[in-house]
Amino acid sequence: MKAYMDMSRDDLLALKASLEEEFKTQEAKGLSLNMARGKPGVSQLALSMPMLDVINSQSDMRTELGNDTRNYGDLDGIGECRRLMADMMEVKKDNVIVCGNSSLNIMYDTVSRSMLCGVNGSTPWCKLDKVKFLCPVPGYDRHFKITELFGIEMINIPLLEDGPDMDLVEEYVNNDEAVKGIWCVPKYSNPTGITYSDEVVRRFANLKPKAEDFRIYWDNAYCIHHIYEDVQDELLNILEECEKAGNPNMVYIFASTSKVTFSGSGVSAIATSLENIEYIKKNMTVQIIGHDKINQLRHARFFKNIDGMKAHMKKHAQLLRPKFDAVLETLDSELTGLDIGSWIKPRGGYFISFNSMPGCAKAIVEKCKELGVVLTDAGATYPYGKDPEDSNIRIAPSFPTPEEMREATKIFVLCVKLVSVEKLLGE
Amino acid sequence: MKAYMDMSRDDLLALKASLEEEFKTQEAKGLSLNMARGKPGVSQLALSMPMLDVINSQSDMRTELGNDTRNYGDLDGIGECRRLMADMMEVKKDNVIVCGNSSLNIMYDTVSRSMLCGVNGSTPWCKLDKVKFLCPVPGYDRHFKITELFGIEMINIPLLEDGPDMDLVEEYVNNDEAVKGIWCVPKYSNPTGITYSDEVVRRFANLKPKAEDFRIYWDNAYCIHHIYEDVQDELLNILEECEKAGNPNMVYIFASTSKVTFSGSGVSAIATSLENIEYIKKNMTVQIIGHDKINQLRHARFFKNIDGMKAHMKKHAQLLRPKFDAVLETLDSELTGLDIGSWIKPRGGYFISFNSMPGCAKAIVEKCKELGVVLTDAGATYPYGKDPEDSNIRIAPSFPTPEEMREATKIFVLCVKLVSVEKLLGE
Repeated sequence: MKAYMDMSRDDLLALKASLEEEFKTQEAKGLSLNMARGKPGVSQLALSMPMLDVINSQSDMRTELGNDTRNYGDLDGIGECRRLMADMMEVKKDNVIVCGNSSLNIMYDTVSRSMLCGVNGSTPWCKLDKVKFLCPVPGYDRHFKITELFGIEMINIPLLEDGPDMDLVEEYVNNDEAVKGIWCVPKYSNPTGITYSDEVVRRFANLKPKAEDFRIYWDNAYCIHHIYEDVQDELLNILEECEKAGNPNMVYIFASTSKVTFSGSGVSAIATSLENIEYIKKNMTVQIIGHDKINQLRHARFFKNIDGMKAHMKKHAQLLRPKFDAVLETLDSELTGLDIGSWIKPRGGYFISFNSMPGCAKAIVEKCKELGVVLTDAGATYPYGKDPEDSNIRIAPSFPTPEEMREATKIFVLCVKLVSVEKLLGE
Repeated sequence: MKAYMDMSRDDLLALKASLEEEFKTQEAKGLSLNMARGKPGVSQLALSMPMLDVINSQSDMRTELGNDTRNYGDLDGIGECRRLMADMMEVKKDNVIVCGNSSLNIMYDTVSRSMLCGVNGSTPWCKLDKVKFLCPVPGYDRHFKITELFGIEMINIPLLEDGPDMDLVEEYVNNDEAVKGIWCVPKYSNPTGITYSDEVVRRFANLKPKAEDFRIYWDNAYCIHHIYEDVQDELLNILEECEKAGNPNMVYIFASTSKVTFSGSGVSAIATSLENIEYIKKNMTVQIIGHDKINQLRHARFFKNIDGMKAHMKKHAQLLRPKFDAVLETLDSELTGLDIGSWIKPRGGYFISFNSMPGCAKAIVEKCKELGVVLTDAGATYPYGKDPEDSNIRIAPSFPTPEEMREATKIFVLCVKLVSVEKLLGE
């Protein structure tokens, strides 16, 4: 394969003509495929249907401790579900509060609480002139939307192959009192799929924040969401590392079963130091009497323990693998050597991140749409929806079938080629 | 019966001695009864157990519109559950967002959102020097805790037998721009059990708020929670009245099935104008991808429609009636004519509100505790936990059995008598 940038103008024009021909052929097909969001596929959802039989009208509705899950109580979640989520998050049970169906909601609440009530007694952020968050990019659009809503200034930090650029993180966190947080998806990162190295995690734990109310927002959304059985990433335990480093309160860890059982009917949890837990509970008791404990019981009894949950995740992996392979094989076979894009082969998570030539992402997403393939908006992986390079595109392979993914990726590479040629021709 | 205040000092001393004797007898029994919170009884929870069979592994998990309830989507709730909650709240389906398991959480979120983002574009309350809420008293402690947490100044408004003192409400709302809200439990009020009269509702709807972002927080927690079949209260439709009065956006209505199905595993909803709904959804989409739709489907299919729900509520009423009767009969037979307390006989809801002689409530609650009967803290029904008269006590008869309630109320009246005598003796 010859790199596009090494091609002559005439060759590019000829290539463009042939790509436009193919574009018309595809256009005529009138496809409709969605690769925009990390939604589990129908076959994945079917895996958890037996969970719906676990609790029925004949069930003993009491927890191991004898509490009636049908009534008020247990603000921090029922014991057996706290243990399950603690094992999933690799922390102790006492460090966990199990909440409702959405870890995003816990993150929103955590930032919202800090805005209005401060962090463990600090000045409420809404009383400060300026609050800033660091945002490793590309990252998760819904994180950025929370901080944007509250008027928190977001600062881009390049996400490298082993985690955020820690030189930059240290510079900001250790010197600027207005920097109150950083958004992280440390394992199988959304969208690049990388996992933070041990060194990066240790550097996080050893930060010396200028602001006492600085926290790491550690969204471990994909902690057990491997795609392969032979190659899996390991993430160092940030809570332990923070303790060792004398920063026990510096991290909030979030996770959920939205992509383990049902998206929207799972359970979510926050894990953090006992001191943080106490402060959160003091506020949470004003917000809610308790979360849905019957659903917590349903989860705890369905999985029995973390081994049950991990066995379940292997079934998910089997279903996701061919979809990721369909994308990666097509990218490999169609784009290798052309020098018009790069991507990382992830070992878990829900996304493949593609970097086009600068200035091409928006046009590629637009062209895909014309052919009936919906992608996440270009720019969405950056704060304020602004990718300064207009280069990053997030591909979500989980919802369509493998065949559909192959078809959709073919259209994607066609659009990448066409837009790249146009760019090189200066059009 | 002779009123205590008409008794001679000697008679009071003799009475005191005999009450103290009885106190010792009761103390020896070592009872343990809880009348503190409005928790449904075990037999009530059993009524909804069949709901747990409605959704199982063989169920069609799609909504009427074909959406998969197991996956992300439907931010405002699934159509069939929105219709059910709309019928329960006597509004149109389009005016309803169905949320998670807790209406308290929706109220918290609504105030929190107003603090941080303002109301439909108004200045965020956290940017204002002063924000005030009107609090009809006695009222619901958890409402007051929300406004207290956010540093909102609370102003007591006497709750009369037909609703809040509307002269006072109008004076504050129509003249003070800092007054941004009022907490209401308009039907079977917590704790007095009264229902707002049509005139009160109309005066609410016709307020001319000085603040454009003033809202009525209409917690219709007990909208279908009757105790009797023959005598039931009717509440005028506030949303319609507000529309008629040219104040369509002035009210937020809240409700849930926490005391219809399961406390903690029900569904909750907010009903308001379409303009308010739009604004709320714009914020809510940052907070959460969607609420638990499987539980919404479970509720919708279990009840089928509002008639199913109302039939279900009759069964609750049958179980609650003897408990309320046990309290009311005991109060009637033991206290009538003594002039040491007053109470209202409610037709629905979860509470009986008792007013002791001024300065006696704390002591009564304390004495009950000594005999093993736990009541809601005296003062809890007032902002900041401060009952200026130290007079109001909330009795929650729902959780114990009728026999236990009769026993507990006997202890309660004993303590009322003893504390009243001591008060009259100037001790």
